[in-house]
Amino acid sequence: MAAKDNKPTSPSYNDGAAYFDMGEHTLRIPMSLHAENRRRLQERLKARGLGGGDVVLLQGGSDSTRYSGDADIVFRQEPYFHWAFGALEPGWYGALDVATGRAVLFCPRLPEEYATWMGRIKSPQKYQQRLQVDEVRYVDEIADVLREMTGQAGALHTLRGVNTDSGKTTLEAAFDGISRFNVNNTLLHDEIAECRVYKTKAELEVLRFATCVSAAAHRCVMRKIRPGMKEYQLEAIFQHHSYYHGGCRHQGYTNICGSGCNAATLHYGHAGDPNLRTVGETDICLFDMGAEYYGYTSDITCSFPASGKFSDDQKLIYNAVLKASKAVMAAVQPGVSWVEMHRLTYRMILEALKEGGVVQGDVDKMMEVNLGSVFMPHGLGHLLGLDVHDVGGYLEQYPPRPTPAGFRSLRTARTLEENMVLTIEPGCYFIDHLLDQALANPEQAQFLVPEAIARFRGFGGVRIEDNIVITADGMEDLAGDTIPRTVEEIEALMAEGQQEEVFVPQLHAQQKLGQ
Amino acid sequence: MAAKDNKPTSPSYNDGAAYFDMGEHTLRIPMSLHAENRRRLQERLKARGLGGGDVVLLQGGSDSTRYSGDADIVFRQEPYFHWAFGALEPGWYGALDVATGRAVLFCPRLPEEYATWMGRIKSPQKYQQRLQVDEVRYVDEIADVLREMTGQAGALHTLRGVNTDSGKTTLEAAFDGISRFNVNNTLLHDEIAECRVYKTKAELEVLRFATCVSAAAHRCVMRKIRPGMKEYQLEAIFQHHSYYHGGCRHQGYTNICGSGCNAATLHYGHAGDPNLRTVGETDICLFDMGAEYYGYTSDITCSFPASGKFSDDQKLIYNAVLKASKAVMAAVQPGVSWVEMHRLTYRMILEALKEGGVVQGDVDKMMEVNLGSVFMPHGLGHLLGLDVHDVGGYLEQYPPRPTPAGFRSLRTARTLEENMVLTIEPGCYFIDHLLDQALANPEQAQFLVPEAIARFRGFGGVRIEDNIVITADGMEDLAGDTIPRTVEEIEALMAEGQQEEVFVPQLHAQQKLGQ
Repeated sequence: MAAKDNKPTSPSYNDGAAYFDMGEHTLRIPMSLHAENRRRLQERLKARGLGGGDVVLLQGGSDSTRYSGDADIVFRQEPYFHWAFGALEPGWYGALDVATGRAVLFCPRLPEEYATWMGRIKSPQKYQQRLQVDEVRYVDEIADVLREMTGQAGALHTLRGVNTDSGKTTLEAAFDGISRFNVNNTLLHDEIAECRVYKTKAELEVLRFATCVSAAAHRCVMRKIRPGMKEYQLEAIFQHHSYYHGGCRHQGYTNICGSGCNAATLHYGHAGDPNLRTVGETDICLFDMGAEYYGYTSDITCSFPASGKFSDDQKLIYNAVLKASKAVMAAVQPGVSWVEMHRLTYRMILEALKEGGVVQGDVDKMMEVNLGSVFMPHGLGHLLGLDVHDVGGYLEQYPPRPTPAGFRSLRTARTLEENMVLTIEPGCYFIDHLLDQALANPEQAQFLVPEAIARFRGFGGVRIEDNIVITADGMEDLAGDTIPRTVEEIEALMAEGQQEEVFVPQLHAQQKLGQ
Repeated sequence: MAAKDNKPTSPSYNDGAAYFDMGEHTLRIPMSLHAENRRRLQERLKARGLGGGDVVLLQGGSDSTRYSGDADIVFRQEPYFHWAFGALEPGWYGALDVATGRAVLFCPRLPEEYATWMGRIKSPQKYQQRLQVDEVRYVDEIADVLREMTGQAGALHTLRGVNTDSGKTTLEAAFDGISRFNVNNTLLHDEIAECRVYKTKAELEVLRFATCVSAAAHRCVMRKIRPGMKEYQLEAIFQHHSYYHGGCRHQGYTNICGSGCNAATLHYGHAGDPNLRTVGETDICLFDMGAEYYGYTSDITCSFPASGKFSDDQKLIYNAVLKASKAVMAAVQPGVSWVEMHRLTYRMILEALKEGGVVQGDVDKMMEVNLGSVFMPHGLGHLLGLDVHDVGGYLEQYPPRPTPAGFRSLRTARTLEENMVLTIEPGCYFIDHLLDQALANPEQAQFLVPEAIARFRGFGGVRIEDNIVITADGMEDLAGDTIPRTVEEIEALMAEGQQEEVFVPQLHAQQKLGQ
């Protein structure tokens, strides 16, 4: 239906309003989200004895282009900087006075031709109004302003630490003249990472929104899938739904759209294996996709049969994983160890596989030889926030990374606490080389039922991934109940979807490229 | 309609077939495309006196993640490497023996856990078969293999040169042990850049396909636009159409979806100004979007009224730009100077603006004071290929960058030759600060009709951009006639589109996130 309404646009983020949204149908985010984050950081640093003359300095991300050409890559703000300040443009710095909480941002001074090529040049005052900080200055004034803030004796606290998922070092602030300051890069990283582990009410709202957008996009995919499509066409549907309906320009990570045997590749979908297979009628599909809103990302996996109807084998594996998911969801609460939840997952899956005749023998003994890791070589889940694998998993004061297979893929071994946001993502896969290893290892092989294992080779796998927040007495699913999870719910939704007409380009070879 | 057909997938690129496609509805690209490129490079280098022991060495791109986290950015191959070798994965090198034409690729040796996380590990033999080179070896063997190829006296020719659009230096190959080779980085860049300027038949096929995909996606946008939508929702429609129907996972550049005044920002749509405005009923829209297929990109701009019906003022400006486009298209052929085409554009636009009462006086005199650059501060167009602003624009032996405003934004000043692919993209914009400058400059101000200029402030602008290849006696529009360009064609298509039902989420606030 055409819109008749032509009312003037309400003031937007770009006009200086102190909130961000992507339209009336999306979530409005107040800039107080960042003020609260800064206040929390300030408190932690004060508790560490910091105060007069101590200034936190974060550097935002810079623009980049593809290789040596000039095609820019759509800018995404550096997550620590975004967490603290919220500015969405490249080339910024932000400073926080630990004693007073005064926040000063530094924006680039743009040349006049910027207005021709890139758009209106906003004044520092406009930015100050929009971002709700105490002051906005130009980057070329940074040394003078920081000297004022630190005085002669104070210190700049910069961000230096290693990300335990990537092994990479954080972006540490630097500017011309920083060598004349007293710089301390040993304190900030662990404190700010620890702050990021616990989400505020405002952050939870954003994560709930991103998760619900993804849930809606996954439902759309389940309705529209038709055997004969390419996997990437489902990726296209997901991306479109989350951007068009949810205002999510970015995905939190590379979309994983595995069908059939590809469902056993945990991080399928990258450029070397780019969601290019044709979905077959009897395939299981494992689609792991999460939209990102305002830098906060969701991370949801749905597994379902391409046909819309589970086969017995598909049901067996799906329900094994669902059983694990439900058990973990019932068990999580403050004080529970995440490593124990991983162990619980393995037990639930092995019990179900035993019931289904895929493994045999005593489940306790299977647990002793870590048989679960053969079927689920990844961790149960991870912290989630501005990064899909969010920071703070292995800070010094918390338990170290476990060593057994599967367990060592956990991205944190911490005890759960209120306001931690995590994924719960049990899975069960039939991965040839892992099955071969297990069959060659008498300790594990004794529990495998050879005919069943042979039957499931090439099956792919199932993963069920939800995004949750730990509450005072349990957890909340950030998607509410908007994702169909039982076999019955999935089959009902897909049956409904199959009534809709869907255009599949490759089935109409003479009518290329759509309308 | 649901697909009933469940025929087995034909062998795909990933299975070792010597072609690339994204399904039966997309273009199949033979790997001989790269063999021909290598042969052309070999000939040029031989003509420069290179031969026995001279080996070209290119390094492909590497994987990258967002900042210090582990979320990978979908890999896109480095364009020079892709041009020569076609491998789509990160971490590769490629060598070409200038005397014999022998091509050897080097792929990373992947650890066993790659198979769990990323997918099947392909053997060098499989890659050799798929990429149709003489040999594929592991990267850890590179020093030995290259020593064999160069002998003791030969040289490695590496890529070092400055991209004249970005000012950045190319990725120059490096590996452990390269210091023991005789490395020459002074010859290769200009020769390979020059090769890339002229497209082969196979490359033209790819560019035609990418262009036609974009044309179809633009038509889809024109059908579905409704005032009240956010600009980014049209971006979402374009991306979806080009991926779902055309297999284009990437766009060649950041989508520019300017409505109203934003249509006067030449590179609108980046993170600092992210296609966030609500499209108004009376707005002009300027949508500059181009899908990329197999690394080759299109670059198309359509301008049209949001309402589907041109106002008199919109028609005036649109037809001025269309007149320039047609004049240039009629004039281009081998031997014509691109700078002259830019000049012709200014003349055509000024003539039309004079006829429309926006400027007054003698057009020759307007040309003397470069009045055209006030309304069109960008260049007429640019080379197009693996980069949206393709390489080779200002190689040493060709005319240097002109200096007058507008002309200096040209990305090449070369004389046109057969098989060059370029954009033709005249435009006419009302940019406040440029109008202010012109009004303050008596030489230019005398030609401006003040009331008309005042009336057009805030109007935005119009750009019409096509992708063409220079032929022996003129040019070919790579989109054929698939883009509506006249006022009548556009209005007819949009009227047709307005009959279709389109769901606009923000007009149904109670029904958030679609189905």
